[in-house]
Amino acid sequence: MIDLPFLADICRPTDSKIVLLVVDGLGGAPHPETKRSELETARIPNLDRLASRSAAGGKTPALAGKKPRNAAGATTPVMHGIPPGSGPGHMALFGYDPVKYLMGRGVLEALGIDVELGPGDLAARGNLCTVDNDNNIVDRRAGRIPTSESAPLVDMLNGIDISGVDVKVYPVQDYRFVLVMHGEGLDDRISETDPQMVGVMPLEAKALDEASEEAAAHVRTFVTAAAEVLRERENANMAMLRGFSLLPELPDFGERYSLNPGAVAAYPMYRGLAKVVGMNVIPTGMTFEDELDTLEEHFDEHDFFFLHYKPADAAGEDGDFAAKVQALEALDAGVGRLMEMDQDVLVVAGDHSTPAILGAHSWHPVPLLVQSKWTAGEGIEEFTERACSVGSLGSLPATEVMMLAMAHAGKLLKYGP
Amino acid sequence: MIDLPFLADICRPTDSKIVLLVVDGLGGAPHPETKRSELETARIPNLDRLASRSAAGGKTPALAGKKPRNAAGATTPVMHGIPPGSGPGHMALFGYDPVKYLMGRGVLEALGIDVELGPGDLAARGNLCTVDNDNNIVDRRAGRIPTSESAPLVDMLNGIDISGVDVKVYPVQDYRFVLVMHGEGLDDRISETDPQMVGVMPLEAKALDEASEEAAAHVRTFVTAAAEVLRERENANMAMLRGFSLLPELPDFGERYSLNPGAVAAYPMYRGLAKVVGMNVIPTGMTFEDELDTLEEHFDEHDFFFLHYKPADAAGEDGDFAAKVQALEALDAGVGRLMEMDQDVLVVAGDHSTPAILGAHSWHPVPLLVQSKWTAGEGIEEFTERACSVGSLGSLPATEVMMLAMAHAGKLLKYGP
Repeated sequence: MIDLPFLADICRPTDSKIVLLVVDGLGGAPHPETKRSELETARIPNLDRLASRSAAGGKTPALAGKKPRNAAGATTPVMHGIPPGSGPGHMALFGYDPVKYLMGRGVLEALGIDVELGPGDLAARGNLCTVDNDNNIVDRRAGRIPTSESAPLVDMLNGIDISGVDVKVYPVQDYRFVLVMHGEGLDDRISETDPQMVGVMPLEAKALDEASEEAAAHVRTFVTAAAEVLRERENANMAMLRGFSLLPELPDFGERYSLNPGAVAAYPMYRGLAKVVGMNVIPTGMTFEDELDTLEEHFDEHDFFFLHYKPADAAGEDGDFAAKVQALEALDAGVGRLMEMDQDVLVVAGDHSTPAILGAHSWHPVPLLVQSKWTAGEGIEEFTERACSVGSLGSLPATEVMMLAMAHAGKLLKYGP
Repeated sequence: MIDLPFLADICRPTDSKIVLLVVDGLGGAPHPETKRSELETARIPNLDRLASRSAAGGKTPALAGKKPRNAAGATTPVMHGIPPGSGPGHMALFGYDPVKYLMGRGVLEALGIDVELGPGDLAARGNLCTVDNDNNIVDRRAGRIPTSESAPLVDMLNGIDISGVDVKVYPVQDYRFVLVMHGEGLDDRISETDPQMVGVMPLEAKALDEASEEAAAHVRTFVTAAAEVLRERENANMAMLRGFSLLPELPDFGERYSLNPGAVAAYPMYRGLAKVVGMNVIPTGMTFEDELDTLEEHFDEHDFFFLHYKPADAAGEDGDFAAKVQALEALDAGVGRLMEMDQDVLVVAGDHSTPAILGAHSWHPVPLLVQSKWTAGEGIEEFTERACSVGSLGSLPATEVMMLAMAHAGKLLKYGP
């Protein structure tokens, strides 16, 4: 983990290059009929080739005459049995203890819409809701009003001024918004105002600790002002807040590893996660092809790239087995392009598993592949959950993947004399 | 790990016997041409036999009629990806957290020449160097003067007297020496005096913390006195110091495990590591045959032996694949003798991997073999990285190897009621 003492002493900059491809929701589980998982069903010749002994790729001069090999394994993002969110899943792959640096819902929602957060900023997830004349909640989601209707309301909330803090409100989608407070000494131990049921009044935001009394008072001020702003409306006439959270103080990724990291991610939350650990986020388009174009264009500018692939997770979350298989096949086509690039170390990892049969993030160990000229090549024949689980790396915490990548890139000195 | 609470409560002395054979730099990686690692290339019938189900050996009465079996796996000394030094590699196998008990270069150098260190002793690695009339460094290694020439100079430095501390200087080899200060409250947070370049003056030793001001002052006094002692000389007329470090407070190995441990190691650093954790170091010769003679002679005196084999690492560090293969074959011959002895548990482990293709310590998981009458025998057919990685023990932290050895020796009670 990144908390290893003296880590900075053993990391050294070199001109070798690492690409960490994070396939969101990579791992799956067997279909009840075919008994084959999504990876086992998909036609993924490039990933299989990467996983096999004869993997091609890696064409830097340093590799001349040496066939790159690979090491496979299965990662555990947080702990056996724990289904991780995207936040912990990525933080672990970046080498950060996902428990110590856990981010709350408010922070993740803010990162998910490209809001820039600084350390100490207090973020919360907001809902526009509908209350009756007695202030009792009638609809927690204000009839799921469309963004076109909610955005002007959020704009109105943005006019709210609270002395002592800067308040900003951002529309998300439909009835959802994000509240960010910027100020001194804000604490996030504040109770939620959403009672999670109808027929009752929204709850009052309360300080759950002495340290959060000032922040809770600011939240109450905001809620009162919001009710005032919206009160003439029939629906969407009240705002509720939950998931109060602070961006944790995060060690800088590049500094800790002596890397100059670049991030290529189509989806904002992953750009946000990369940004808060200090990676240089490179603008890109919405498809994997766009991402690969971006990577290619900026290939010389960084010695480390975080490359994110989203569609596998989206299909898994939808519970759509066939769509996840397709997403993996589309991934594989891109991997073929990736294999033609000149990285010295290619890591294919997942932030967590998302089996389509579950329709949700799961606790299943996630296949991992490390390719460099130094790996032993254990001869697994395909890139699947089963094959990787008997790979030479065995099962390992996701937090150690970065160390493996660094080692394979020749960027680590001996630990201890 | 040894930090397991109540560990001492569950360890019980028995008359069963454990031999922990540490093969320095055991693990390797495939040769680019043959695709076979050093272990896969070497003819090692005894180790293969040990690794196979039908392994012979272990002839104490308790074993009568039961064929000893084995369990294989792959150990991670510090963390995936981290190439460990010899210090952390051995401390982990002894069951000590290699991060918590990390030793600095000065301490390791001292242990490497059989200098006895106590807790709180401050050690540093020294270089004799050559400076010009302006005190600028001309040669950081004083022309690599031979030990025959440097030893008398080190003797002169030994005459330096500093009030408040005992100072001892020991020759190592050529231009290298070790400085040890014995006194109260010495702190090792001191900056190095070796600028690691020529054409500039040696640096002044500075306290990097308030707590180290006194120790840093002693170091400056020593350096000034050393310059005075050497100043008439043309070369080797100055001394530089680095790697200031204290021996950490180490729990006693024998006490923690309820063992009476003996150590047989040809090379001084490994004797030193054994000594500082409280093992009884038995004098021995320079070859593995000598070590095995020593083990045999003293077999009845201890219930635990740490036995060290060095040549595999030396060959690996030299990048000499063929020499490493030979070193493993020589090891195997000795293992044949070892198998005739009466230990109840034989562990074959490595402190780290040293693949010849890398010419350095590496991060690769290290093959592990535990043989006792209690192991399940997973039927791996040979003692290689690949075979061990699919052994019944899977991959495990090296710090847990001692627990496995204790368990297999019947020396562990139930943990918790």
